Amino acid sequence: MEQPAKGIIHTIPPRSGTSFPLSIGELLTVTDPEGQQVSDLLSFSRSDLREVLSNGRTLDYAIYLSTGDPLYSNRSNIMLSIVEDTCGKNDFLLTPCSKEMFRIIYGHDQPHRGCFGNLAEAVQPWGITEDAIPVAFNCFMNVPIDGTTGEIKVLTPTSRAGDYIKFRAEMDLVVAMTACSAGQSNGGTFKPIQYRIDGP
Amino acid sequence: MEQPAKGIIHTIPPRSGTSFPLSIGELLTVTDPEGQQVSDLLSFSRSDLREVLSNGRTLDYAIYLSTGDPLYSNRSNIMLSIVEDTCGKNDFLLTPCSKEMFRIIYGHDQPHRGCFGNLAEAVQPWGITEDAIPVAFNCFMNVPIDGTTGEIKVLTPTSRAGDYIKFRAEMDLVVAMTACSAGQSNGGTFKPIQYRIDGP
Repeated sequence: MEQPAKGIIHTIPPRSGTSFPLSIGELLTVTDPEGQQVSDLLSFSRSDLREVLSNGRTLDYAIYLSTGDPLYSNRSNIMLSIVEDTCGKNDFLLTPCSKEMFRIIYGHDQPHRGCFGNLAEAVQPWGITEDAIPVAFNCFMNVPIDGTTGEIKVLTPTSRAGDYIKFRAEMDLVVAMTACSAGQSNGGTFKPIQYRIDGP
Repeated sequence: MEQPAKGIIHTIPPRSGTSFPLSIGELLTVTDPEGQQVSDLLSFSRSDLREVLSNGRTLDYAIYLSTGDPLYSNRSNIMLSIVEDTCGKNDFLLTPCSKEMFRIIYGHDQPHRGCFGNLAEAVQPWGITEDAIPVAFNCFMNVPIDGTTGEIKVLTPTSRAGDYIKFRAEMDLVVAMTACSAGQSNGGTFKPIQYRIDGP
């Protein structure tokens, strides 16, 4: 649970996850090195881990989530701000892929544990339980909504190799991130995700 | 925390909330008696209150939420099924209105505690804390989405006097409900909500 070295690139292998502390004012850059790969991102307040990222709170205040937008906690405090976003398409509606989802949607008999299992393992050393995992902010996830029918589609990400999204921590956080494990979300292949911490 | 009498109509006064047990197989009918009034609805598993309603899980499996659709928990179990819905427009994106929201969005100096405060008080006797309150299923809430821009609007409900939505409990639950307190969500006036429990 040490903070990863600053200013260098760290790699999350395909279909896996990690967690690390991120302190107020630090910048976190999440990069899709090969293109078309999603990363599910969670944050928890280090001063009280029950304060977590909340899609419902965030959608209340900011709707189209890209450069300039804040990500709120369940206590209506800003946890992260998006300071740069070269892809522009992210999702904050859908929950991390999980073994239950692979069973129900994909019909897998022996399902992968998915981002949910990877996030659960990544946050377990912090004493955070599975039930405390909220909807993640899904970097590069391409989820268009049909405004008329309400239909939500999961399409291949529009991110190209090298696209990135940069966050600033607005409080001291535990951050957990994955390289997403769901075929449909990632154009059918499983690729790594890279991240870097800088500043403040 | 007794179960309300079955087969008769109970009224939730304007800008207030309540909670009650609802057992597997029972039917819960939520009625908008005057029209254009939202009710925020939560559910928790009675066998383990950490199992709660999850919009992220639900949107994974069912998208357009009306008659026939299941509402999932954070553990991917079905908590409630919608068996009838005469209005057809409900929301499962936006978090309950709260004093923070009235302060940030409405600019109120002395904000009402909103559905969040009403739900928190309603579930407190069960030992459920504020941080454990998820995004509610917002009966009759009219939240159209612009599929191109991603813009979400909160419009006056389309519900007319007497419109109702009927749920079947798929496990033993604690249910909490409000008559919503936000002007914008309710066409500018605060009206009661009614409910009835039947069966199984």
